[in-house]
Amino acid sequence: MTATPWTRKHIISLEDFTIDEYDAVLTTASSFKSVLKSRTKKVPALQGQVVANMFFEPSTRTRSSFELAAKRLSADILNFAPGTSSLTKGETILDTAKTYWAMGANIMVIRHSNSGVPLNVAMEMDRLNSGVSIFNGGDGLHQHPSQALLDLFTICSLLDEKNPQLSLLKGKKVAIVGDILHSRVARSNINSLLAGGCEVHLAAPPTLLPSLFLETINSSQKKRLFVHWHLKPALENADFVMTLRLQKERMTDYLLPSLREYHQLFGITHERLQWCNPEVKVLHPGPVNRGVELSSELMDDGKYSLIGEQVTNGVAVRMALLYLIGN
Amino acid sequence: MTATPWTRKHIISLEDFTIDEYDAVLTTASSFKSVLKSRTKKVPALQGQVVANMFFEPSTRTRSSFELAAKRLSADILNFAPGTSSLTKGETILDTAKTYWAMGANIMVIRHSNSGVPLNVAMEMDRLNSGVSIFNGGDGLHQHPSQALLDLFTICSLLDEKNPQLSLLKGKKVAIVGDILHSRVARSNINSLLAGGCEVHLAAPPTLLPSLFLETINSSQKKRLFVHWHLKPALENADFVMTLRLQKERMTDYLLPSLREYHQLFGITHERLQWCNPEVKVLHPGPVNRGVELSSELMDDGKYSLIGEQVTNGVAVRMALLYLIGN
Amino acid sequence: MTATPWTRKHIISLEDFTIDEYDAVLTTASSFKSVLKSRTKKVPALQGQVVANMFFEPSTRTRSSFELAAKRLSADILNFAPGTSSLTKGETILDTAKTYWAMGANIMVIRHSNSGVPLNVAMEMDRLNSGVSIFNGGDGLHQHPSQALLDLFTICSLLDEKNPQLSLLKGKKVAIVGDILHSRVARSNINSLLAGGCEVHLAAPPTLLPSLFLETINSSQKKRLFVHWHLKPALENADFVMTLRLQKERMTDYLLPSLREYHQLFGITHERLQWCNPEVKVLHPGPVNRGVELSSELMDDGKYSLIGEQVTNGVAVRMALLYLIGN
Repeated sequence: MTATPWTRKHIISLEDFTIDEYDAVLTTASSFKSVLKSRTKKVPALQGQVVANMFFEPSTRTRSSFELAAKRLSADILNFAPGTSSLTKGETILDTAKTYWAMGANIMVIRHSNSGVPLNVAMEMDRLNSGVSIFNGGDGLHQHPSQALLDLFTICSLLDEKNPQLSLLKGKKVAIVGDILHSRVARSNINSLLAGGCEVHLAAPPTLLPSLFLETINSSQKKRLFVHWHLKPALENADFVMTLRLQKERMTDYLLPSLREYHQLFGITHERLQWCNPEVKVLHPGPVNRGVELSSELMDDGKYSLIGEQVTNGVAVRMALLYLIGN
Repeated sequence: MTATPWTRKHIISLEDFTIDEYDAVLTTASSFKSVLKSRTKKVPALQGQVVANMFFEPSTRTRSSFELAAKRLSADILNFAPGTSSLTKGETILDTAKTYWAMGANIMVIRHSNSGVPLNVAMEMDRLNSGVSIFNGGDGLHQHPSQALLDLFTICSLLDEKNPQLSLLKGKKVAIVGDILHSRVARSNINSLLAGGCEVHLAAPPTLLPSLFLETINSSQKKRLFVHWHLKPALENADFVMTLRLQKERMTDYLLPSLREYHQLFGITHERLQWCNPEVKVLHPGPVNRGVELSSELMDDGKYSLIGEQVTNGVAVRMALLYLIGN
Repeated sequence: MTATPWTRKHIISLEDFTIDEYDAVLTTASSFKSVLKSRTKKVPALQGQVVANMFFEPSTRTRSSFELAAKRLSADILNFAPGTSSLTKGETILDTAKTYWAMGANIMVIRHSNSGVPLNVAMEMDRLNSGVSIFNGGDGLHQHPSQALLDLFTICSLLDEKNPQLSLLKGKKVAIVGDILHSRVARSNINSLLAGGCEVHLAAPPTLLPSLFLETINSSQKKRLFVHWHLKPALENADFVMTLRLQKERMTDYLLPSLREYHQLFGITHERLQWCNPEVKVLHPGPVNRGVELSSELMDDGKYSLIGEQVTNGVAVRMALLYLIGN
């Protein structure tokens, strides 16, 4: 563990995460990863505590990962199904959160299509001295901190499995490719990667990465952030390539001519990885559109793809975060 | 505990609840409330037992409360999702219940939009000597016993936290305001409040409280039940004001001109609470339409509102009821 | 237990089940049935293991049975809700399975409307050396092995409660009546019953049992399998009558004139059971269309109906299968 004790109550955004906090998450996730390799796979850390999964935006994958993380910590889970909820009866989200608090929820994992919802709930929970922790499970176009932290853990564990630390990123080049404009994953990753001392190269068509994009990034380290409208300069000598999911709606929004053209210009293939560092690894937050963001062959090539590792690490990192805010 | 041992197998209606039964619920809920304040928050009372949540009418709030209560008692939960159920394949509700019994369910919590469904299932389960307990989670316009019992527990705990008992209600005046005609919560509350010796004053527009309403109430204590078509006489010197949720469908049913007019005539505000006993408290079963049944300011005013307390007590009261019928 | 140790990793089909495997399932289910009669009803056999219920075809009944079986074995459950899943985002089923594997799932119960999906996933899981077990929860028109095994266990337990074994079937006559063409339950039952040495008599209207049907059955014991287009020859001296659920869609597919005519020609009633062995018993996988496959009176007659027993045994048999493949 780190010298500084953990004090953060909510996980909302990585914009103000400190190096000590990143390292605490990485160290704690590393020890939980060992727990997951043991026979029982459980620790009693959150016994008696209630984790409410409040996913106003549907997501089986992320919800399952949080659910499993909470179960491994022996917490009780309440799954909130938006379709059958009081919200359809006109209740506000703050009132729903207060109801779950009154019912006994200790941690609420909130995913919502509107940016800022988890922060708003967290502020209200603090105002009421509720003691409840809010965990942003992805909000609008804003942040997806647990995804970026599991990406970070995946990269740092690859660089030093026994002792993953933020400083391992120093001097690395990371390319982030795809629909950066609409990606909360990209925003959170930009925060953590810049904090770790990387060079971060963004590559996307101009419609998905407007020149004004940099102004939306709140970081003192922006001088190590670069924007490209072509793939090659982003990939050259890159150590890691992070691909982003392409929402099919972007086509009907007239932001892209076709999936096929997108793949021809920005799809990652074995051939294009030749531009990178020979040790390059590819990440994707999933679910992947095979043959769009990545070629199908590359996705299945364990030499390059870290996608399975990301999912596995997701459980350990979410255990670490629930543990840190839940104690 | 009370002198009389608990014998009731099903929780269907409060119409025939005895004073001993009310007191057993209040005493048991009080001890479970202490469990909920402890570190582990769990007791092994229902270990190995299966509670099936059969919510034919969707409800996240009530289902979560039952689910949490059952988990705190160490029971296993089966959640029955009507949308994906065999009912869409033409099976009867009795056959569905028999299937869950055969699978091992010990307690079934049934919510249904038709009055009488839980009673019917209970009768069939008894006829078959199944040993299964049925818990009415709200049926049509009939009864919602756990809601009324948590309201009762909330009131009695306020009057004597250490020793909540039905007799504490004697001589109190309680106003129930809102859509009484369509409220199973009101019907159950009328039963428990009259049993405790309250004066119960109903207030609503005539369309939501027809003069024939009293005839639908099955109680020997009807002489302490009063009907008003204006708010003031109901609120004057009241000790507790119970507000009811207003379904928006009542507008399209032509039973109300507008939500705004309803609020002007029957909405509870700080100003109108001046008519009541200065120590008055306000309850609402939730979810609240802010600015309709209550003003938004009043809802958030901890001096008057018991709404959060109701939700918290809901878990303890449901634990008590599951415990009493499950043993 | 049997002399041969259990080696099968996946439960996909009964086509190649050996006698030793059938007996291992029956013996193990029998001991779990005793556990279910004990006070705690749980064993720690799968503690720390994760069972993912992946029901691409909705089914509350079968999913609940698997869920309860897994809970009784102390496993953790992940319920995958197809409506809110990544599949709506274009991910392939194999990629979804790989994601659940990466997340930590040890056993995946897969139900899908397409025949072959569980097998495909199992082959991919083996190719990847994942160690994951796949359990076919019903695939298209192909197989539903756990249903046939619980039917088998129900029959063999009736013949010898203490020592249910496949060989007890020898010389028995079993009729399978109904929509055989579209029934994966029938296909799996034909495999197990023929393996046990029964005579199996199929009865259905020609549209639901074409003369070519026998060619779809992969069994060396086909000489004990008979096809009838009338009920009587199938029922004469039968020891067991297995009825199959009739999908109402068959009417709109023009395969049946009406439910009423179906019942008149193939519905099982007390009267028609007179043709059978006096000790005859009737099975149905559920949910039953009362008055179609069976008369309502017969369904409720404990002298003949094994329907409730089938549901109860379903949990024990699924515990046995999860236990055998999970260890």
